[in-house]
Amino acid sequence: MTYDCSFLADLPLDGPVSFEESVRENNAADWAAREAGLGVLPDVVVWPTSTEDVVAVLEAAHEREVPVTPYAAGTSLEGNAVPQFKGISLDMTRMDAVLEVRPDDFQLDVEPGVMGNVADEAAADHGMFFPPLPSSGKLSTIGGMIVNDASGQQTVKYGEVADWVLELEVVLSDGSVIEAGSRAVKTSSGYNLKDLIVGSEGTLGVVTRATLELEGRPEQIRGGRAVFAELDDAAEAVFDVVRSGVDVAKIELIDPLAGEMANRYLDTGLPDAPMIFVEFHANHGIDEEIAFFETIIEAHDVERFEIDDEERMAELWRARDELAFAAQQYDPDLEPGHPGDVTVPISRYPDIIRYAKDLANEHDILLPCFGHAGDGNVHYSALVDPEDEAMLERAETVYDAIVEQAIAWGGTATGEHGIGMGKRKFLELEHGAAGVQAMRAVKAALDPKDILNPGKIFPETEAEGGRVDLSAF
Amino acid sequence: MTYDCSFLADLPLDGPVSFEESVRENNAADWAAREAGLGVLPDVVVWPTSTEDVVAVLEAAHEREVPVTPYAAGTSLEGNAVPQFKGISLDMTRMDAVLEVRPDDFQLDVEPGVMGNVADEAAADHGMFFPPLPSSGKLSTIGGMIVNDASGQQTVKYGEVADWVLELEVVLSDGSVIEAGSRAVKTSSGYNLKDLIVGSEGTLGVVTRATLELEGRPEQIRGGRAVFAELDDAAEAVFDVVRSGVDVAKIELIDPLAGEMANRYLDTGLPDAPMIFVEFHANHGIDEEIAFFETIIEAHDVERFEIDDEERMAELWRARDELAFAAQQYDPDLEPGHPGDVTVPISRYPDIIRYAKDLANEHDILLPCFGHAGDGNVHYSALVDPEDEAMLERAETVYDAIVEQAIAWGGTATGEHGIGMGKRKFLELEHGAAGVQAMRAVKAALDPKDILNPGKIFPETEAEGGRVDLSAF
Repeated sequence: MTYDCSFLADLPLDGPVSFEESVRENNAADWAAREAGLGVLPDVVVWPTSTEDVVAVLEAAHEREVPVTPYAAGTSLEGNAVPQFKGISLDMTRMDAVLEVRPDDFQLDVEPGVMGNVADEAAADHGMFFPPLPSSGKLSTIGGMIVNDASGQQTVKYGEVADWVLELEVVLSDGSVIEAGSRAVKTSSGYNLKDLIVGSEGTLGVVTRATLELEGRPEQIRGGRAVFAELDDAAEAVFDVVRSGVDVAKIELIDPLAGEMANRYLDTGLPDAPMIFVEFHANHGIDEEIAFFETIIEAHDVERFEIDDEERMAELWRARDELAFAAQQYDPDLEPGHPGDVTVPISRYPDIIRYAKDLANEHDILLPCFGHAGDGNVHYSALVDPEDEAMLERAETVYDAIVEQAIAWGGTATGEHGIGMGKRKFLELEHGAAGVQAMRAVKAALDPKDILNPGKIFPETEAEGGRVDLSAF
Repeated sequence: MTYDCSFLADLPLDGPVSFEESVRENNAADWAAREAGLGVLPDVVVWPTSTEDVVAVLEAAHEREVPVTPYAAGTSLEGNAVPQFKGISLDMTRMDAVLEVRPDDFQLDVEPGVMGNVADEAAADHGMFFPPLPSSGKLSTIGGMIVNDASGQQTVKYGEVADWVLELEVVLSDGSVIEAGSRAVKTSSGYNLKDLIVGSEGTLGVVTRATLELEGRPEQIRGGRAVFAELDDAAEAVFDVVRSGVDVAKIELIDPLAGEMANRYLDTGLPDAPMIFVEFHANHGIDEEIAFFETIIEAHDVERFEIDDEERMAELWRARDELAFAAQQYDPDLEPGHPGDVTVPISRYPDIIRYAKDLANEHDILLPCFGHAGDGNVHYSALVDPEDEAMLERAETVYDAIVEQAIAWGGTATGEHGIGMGKRKFLELEHGAAGVQAMRAVKAALDPKDILNPGKIFPETEAEGGRVDLSAF
């Protein structure tokens, strides 16, 4: 069904409203849905420019029971920002101001539509940085990172986005405005609504302002890479590095296939071998820490370890950051399927890598594996011929089995990309029927009319079956 | 009113049930209420020994709408565990097992009634520790720390309890059991119910098992103290140390009055002067970090800085840990009133110390100030003659004004002790009407019959006015 959204034209909004099809197409899909040629056209796109605009839209939509799906850079991977039931796409990209930096408190206030790198640069002007910035930091917004509880390469040392959000201004489904959290670095005052909003994918409220915590830039930064003959050794080395308490700021695994993809895409001259990219941050004693790291990896048959100069290392990190694009270019006959991200306790990291690669081989699927290894995090994507139905089915079998195995080992279906539409079917497996029921109760309490990003996170119900309209466009 | 709890005798519980008055008296108050000679007798005390026991009690209480107030060591300071509306005191102290240590994953599974130091010692057997352990770690339980989102001296470096809880088993008000969180170090799967339960003071569910994250013991630990002539210099020094990014693992302010109390109580030979106690943790370069610290404090007219040997430092930390007891012994005519804890952004730390001390002087009240300075956290307590009504009134004025000023500066009414009964009146000032309304909606969603620790956190409503029964006993 579609919704009559003409009422938006009568609201006293500062931001624009568009009913143009080409504009609506732009907000119909996120990165993964667009790659798959799927999406849902919203009935209208609105660009609020202030909290007041968001309040006005939500009040009116709430009264009329019209779905509202927040949208920003559209870089999510699970359909999180797809307006599954049409209605209003609430595009936050014009609320993109850096509001205030308070260096004495290591705090930065931003609007949600600010790009990650812009926020990070505002911090850099004061010798600070935003540690959990994801690899997609130049392409995605702070608001998107918050509502998906994103994380990045430095999460192994510094934690995830949730750990660096102090306070949020949030507009709830009925248009009421709350401040969740505190500008104090710790609080035990009332319920922690801040961390309930973080990771809620726009289903509980719309973030209109965030106070982020920052960290001072370390005085010493060194990066390098270790090359192994066997992937298994590389994965075991990662586990041992973490278990031994080596203070790494980044530690990424690149499997041979991912390395090969990066070479073809960026001509980085990487060997087609399993590698660990690593970075160290310290104020003192970085050489001792690097030596400690080397001791550990030598016990796992490392073939070569090199500390690279800044320029070369920047090139390697760029190769890592752009692996998702490299996968698209790797083979003209194959496209990367649904990109997955699971996370397991670190002791299971070598197991999940073995499991994923063996399973892919068994099913004759090319499956590059990489990701934030030190967190027990694996990114993977099956390369598929979209015309080959049997191959698509095998890829889905592999994809699902990896998620299920991660959960069975005490891990999670999604370390950093949320549930969206793509992982709804695993929610109950991970959290149990009672857990999902408790989440539904919270959703009903804060959004009783189910207008905020409906059709996400929760397993599909029979009632909603007929409403889904994800289609090629 | 009282509740007929005889149904408990018919439940198939493994743990004991007692209707004895002397037993019920024991669970009538927390530390602060007992000091004030206040409390509420529960109708019955039950000691569950398993999750199944907790489920059985909650199912039966839910059916009969009988209040259930979880209780453990009773060390809270805001009446958090006082069974304000009688009913069942659910005493968790017999669920006190250390269940499993998984050193490879830095994880420890415990039952909620385990004492903090016991959990920490289980970690120590594997060269690890539980970083956010509060100063009261030997007196309080892990479950109590979790539901109050406690923190401690090391929070300045390592974070609060919430940051070190990975997964919780929780029994909800109707007896359903959920697993909140994940054993993966990061997840963005569904709503973050784990951090909703943390700090919820037993009003949303009963924690029956916790997976804690641990940290490896640093190779270098050094402690010392800095003595100042002026309190203002000491407070400004703390701010500057934090702002400058000195890597301190503990940094505590002791005002001259608190120092004097410690001397009388433990004969520690501390000067009656403002002091900073500090500790450093590192694997390399601890001397450079200490030198950096010294540079900063020298700019704030420090009179003396000494690194103490391990034994002396242990004595000093003990003096710090026992300041609450020292306050009780300081003057036979004066008793410490309601102990307060507020937290402000660090740039406001010198301001809040000045504000508190000046206000106390103006009102002729002795007000020792100490606490986890590096977090912007102030502990304070007015020393009062309980027979002197005018003095009690002045003390309350000072107490309230400090909380209100902390909130006005972007801080919080409670950094680590929760709202309980004592700080209900500040909840709306801190979170706004809409924020409190959202919290009430969450409470109603998860505990629709309001049986779990009723009368806590939320501002008193007219309807409940007649039910309150906090009295001398």
